[in-house]
Amino acid sequence: MPCKNTFGGNMKVKNILGERFKERAYDIESQNLMTRGGYMKQVGNGIYSLFTPTKRIQNKIEAILREEMDAIDGQEVLFPVVMPATLWQSSGRFDSIGKELLRFKDRSGADMVLGMTHEEAAVQLAMNVAGTYQKYPFMIYQIQTKFRDEPRARGGLIRVREFTMKDAYSFHTSQEDLEKYYERAYRAYERIYARAGVPEVIAVKSDSGMMGGKVSHEFMLLTEIGEDSIVICPECGFRANMEACEAITENAADEALEPLCEVFTGEAKTIDEVGTMLNKPAEKTCKAVVYQRNADDSYVLIFCRGDREINETKLTNYLRSEIHPALDIENANLAAGNIGPVGLETKATVLFDRSLVGATNLVCGANREEYHLTGFTPSRDLPGNTEFIDLTKAVAGGVCPSCGKHSLKVSRGIEVGNIFQLGKRYTEAMGMTYDSENGERKNPIMGCYGIGVGRLIASVCEAHHDDYGPIWPITIAPWQVEICALRIDDASVREAADRLYSELEKAGVEVLYDDRAVSAGFMFSDADLFGAPVRVVISPKTLSRGCFELSARDKSFRCDIPVEGAAEAVEAKVRELIEAVNAKVPERM
Amino acid sequence: MPCKNTFGGNMKVKNILGERFKERAYDIESQNLMTRGGYMKQVGNGIYSLFTPTKRIQNKIEAILREEMDAIDGQEVLFPVVMPATLWQSSGRFDSIGKELLRFKDRSGADMVLGMTHEEAAVQLAMNVAGTYQKYPFMIYQIQTKFRDEPRARGGLIRVREFTMKDAYSFHTSQEDLEKYYERAYRAYERIYARAGVPEVIAVKSDSGMMGGKVSHEFMLLTEIGEDSIVICPECGFRANMEACEAITENAADEALEPLCEVFTGEAKTIDEVGTMLNKPAEKTCKAVVYQRNADDSYVLIFCRGDREINETKLTNYLRSEIHPALDIENANLAAGNIGPVGLETKATVLFDRSLVGATNLVCGANREEYHLTGFTPSRDLPGNTEFIDLTKAVAGGVCPSCGKHSLKVSRGIEVGNIFQLGKRYTEAMGMTYDSENGERKNPIMGCYGIGVGRLIASVCEAHHDDYGPIWPITIAPWQVEICALRIDDASVREAADRLYSELEKAGVEVLYDDRAVSAGFMFSDADLFGAPVRVVISPKTLSRGCFELSARDKSFRCDIPVEGAAEAVEAKVRELIEAVNAKVPERM
Repeated sequence: MPCKNTFGGNMKVKNILGERFKERAYDIESQNLMTRGGYMKQVGNGIYSLFTPTKRIQNKIEAILREEMDAIDGQEVLFPVVMPATLWQSSGRFDSIGKELLRFKDRSGADMVLGMTHEEAAVQLAMNVAGTYQKYPFMIYQIQTKFRDEPRARGGLIRVREFTMKDAYSFHTSQEDLEKYYERAYRAYERIYARAGVPEVIAVKSDSGMMGGKVSHEFMLLTEIGEDSIVICPECGFRANMEACEAITENAADEALEPLCEVFTGEAKTIDEVGTMLNKPAEKTCKAVVYQRNADDSYVLIFCRGDREINETKLTNYLRSEIHPALDIENANLAAGNIGPVGLETKATVLFDRSLVGATNLVCGANREEYHLTGFTPSRDLPGNTEFIDLTKAVAGGVCPSCGKHSLKVSRGIEVGNIFQLGKRYTEAMGMTYDSENGERKNPIMGCYGIGVGRLIASVCEAHHDDYGPIWPITIAPWQVEICALRIDDASVREAADRLYSELEKAGVEVLYDDRAVSAGFMFSDADLFGAPVRVVISPKTLSRGCFELSARDKSFRCDIPVEGAAEAVEAKVRELIEAVNAKVPERM
Repeated sequence: MPCKNTFGGNMKVKNILGERFKERAYDIESQNLMTRGGYMKQVGNGIYSLFTPTKRIQNKIEAILREEMDAIDGQEVLFPVVMPATLWQSSGRFDSIGKELLRFKDRSGADMVLGMTHEEAAVQLAMNVAGTYQKYPFMIYQIQTKFRDEPRARGGLIRVREFTMKDAYSFHTSQEDLEKYYERAYRAYERIYARAGVPEVIAVKSDSGMMGGKVSHEFMLLTEIGEDSIVICPECGFRANMEACEAITENAADEALEPLCEVFTGEAKTIDEVGTMLNKPAEKTCKAVVYQRNADDSYVLIFCRGDREINETKLTNYLRSEIHPALDIENANLAAGNIGPVGLETKATVLFDRSLVGATNLVCGANREEYHLTGFTPSRDLPGNTEFIDLTKAVAGGVCPSCGKHSLKVSRGIEVGNIFQLGKRYTEAMGMTYDSENGERKNPIMGCYGIGVGRLIASVCEAHHDDYGPIWPITIAPWQVEICALRIDDASVREAADRLYSELEKAGVEVLYDDRAVSAGFMFSDADLFGAPVRVVISPKTLSRGCFELSARDKSFRCDIPVEGAAEAVEAKVRELIEAVNAKVPERM
């Protein structure tokens, strides 16, 4: 079995378009190193061109994606980037999605959109060609450019506006069948990340957001620069995105309930100020948080324990409408800084968070300028039919919703993929049906499965680098091996290096060859930025020992190999590294 | 060497998403057959989704493109689909290109365009990283989605608005180096078409149009449904697009020159009517054709021989402005139907075509309602400094500009690729420079090289089909072999077909397996639409002979093969067909 050499020929460093430099370019390390290494160039806000090394990585990841999608019976198709608005109107998303969906008119004045996801296109393609139950289940996928008009592009390829994505859509005749397939897709995703050299990617429960549907998972690479908060229980393995994590708050009841009592608090407005003034810790306070619905600016007022934060995703999902923190509450007829749950008169929607359940003797606003109440005990002071809803964020050290221990940890993570059980959200809206076994017309049940290729590349770099450059896993590295020929003006170096290059090429090893007449320091710092996992140094010094020097980009080995048989030794090392990656890939389901 | 099996797993017909049907769907045969065969589905005007068979063909063509581009030292990169308008302003094309360049605003109000070609992006990527002559030459290419807002999408994938394209850009320090590279690219293109199974594609000289630059070629597949007229000389091999073909008109001078004479022609207006009235053939007339410049509607008046047609491309290039046939000439102060070259008073730009050189005794308008002139002899009746320009179309049977024989033929063709010597058009406009060997700052010289993947697929279908479906060349067929198992309810058929499927899969042959319980007629008409070049029929009848039936989709062979060793026989046939394609591929340069 030759080492795979699927994409692009072997190359010499001097021929690669792109320049490498030393100066720190950005704070986020993957962006810094990939810019310094000549991997990409910005064309516009959140829009990049990719140089050859990145494109080679992308081609390899795409090959892995194709193999794993085909292995779970996926059929590769291609949807358009530009779609008529009518298609998105048929699902209702043309109106429900915000400005991140880029809308424009074509030359004939027709409304069009740029695809940011392709559920509608998948249903359109499958509609009328899957009209009977025998055609199910099936899965179609594509690898295609998407555009999402992000307001805040950041981190190089981490969050861009235009990106290449693998998106897959499965269609089923029963929830059980979807769930069975979802498990296979979940496993395929684990295999994809492991094959790409990041087996440390974990799946977490997630919020389904604008996609519709109930069950969904995100695949996360934990890193400080991640945009998501991940809640993890080391005790039982529970993992969830903060957005989707149930928050459990324990309140130890005081033995004696105090009566409600109005106290003068003057200028003290924030719950911190009031707590300090009255010598109460934050957990013995009840705070009011005010939002407005985006659609009509109507007010939503939430009471929660003073040390808790509102989880806006939960709030949005509960209200089924987009919201924003209230800009001013002057029109709301509320006493800002003194809003309280007792004796409140307001037109706002009033909600109570579960963190108040079982709490006693809290400080809260008195609905009167310069006054608060003490002794607020929700179970006593609120109407008996008051509903308490989970609207706040889980906290580090908090109670695990799965095992019940006070074990939660919160980490940062980058989302590198997601899978959703969509249900009938799209097939119902768009009227896609099939005839079931007993002759009923039914809507198919869908799942969808996405991976952004560019973000995965940047995330791998974020997870696998040192101060000098990326350390690409051998399965996705632009080149498996770099030959550094020092003192190329020396005929014996030239001859040995040329021969090794040609022998490795014949063996199907992917080689980058640096035969420039530059200093060792210059050559090695470039090599660090290219990040080939295996390096062979050939110099008058190594030749005087009858050897080449073989080393790993990650410093895991460094040894001499005899000139005779060097190609075989390098090839064996490449194969060993490939096998080490493959050893961490779980079996297919 | 196993038969290549690069993309997608082997499949069963029953699992393929897409339906096939018999009813004629469109007049253009490739569109008709690819629609009837479940290859694509329209999403909007000129916008298609591709089903799996087409995507498999596309993947194979892309692999050929990558190999051939890499072989001429191409570096694969990726440019964005969405680009800031500023990039296109820097070349001047944001303003000079018409509505086919789709322009819109992003969420921040910034002007953006959808890429219809990527010269600007290529220069932007190479700028600042190729600052010295040692970095040259280099070539970068991508395979990416493009959008061109065509007013008249037609023919399925022949002319669409969104399409996948391979576009390549080379950079050089001298015209000689560009020309040398251009030859290599030309050869690579010949190889690409031959490898894709259409070695009959020919290169023709073409007009460079909006791309700038001088020398360019189009690669054409000759077919009746083509949109281009191709002028071919069978005597010497001269080939040109009609748009770019020099027109040579021979005029036999009459012995006696007649005097100019005004004659009453009444209602006769067109040159045909006047010729008939005065008993003159069209070649003894001089007609006037009126255009207007798009920019300001100013008039352009061309005189040419009555039997010639204006070549609008030549006219546009000569004027350096876009033009359209005059809508009305009321404001032009011209006597419509009686316009003539003698005694003409007009503000219009007046041009004379070369077809008038040497002509004598022509009929032409008299610039007076209801009158024409006879005896018009341009060499006598026009000022001595009159310039005669080549502004008309070459004609079938006309004089070959290369060998001078009256040998020209005119055929229709589809353009399936093009190559351009761009020169410094973009590097000058965008200010890309390098330091030459003797220290001067210079602009690099560019070439560019494009192939539309979807159009190539449709063109192959157009060139290789019968009434029943496409006949895909084995090198790009979605599947190399289809197994048709008739009477799958027969256990011996099932067993034999399953075994062959699994053996061929192990051998790396790409197999489509039809194991549906349907009639032979139904199965074969589907198989004709799938177009796999090799077919194996397994039925109780063939088994009773101890055989399978092996046949070609193009009917070039049909024979029995013994059940024992059938997989090897099929594999050998596949290899034979691949080698037959490869035999027509020219050597690399």
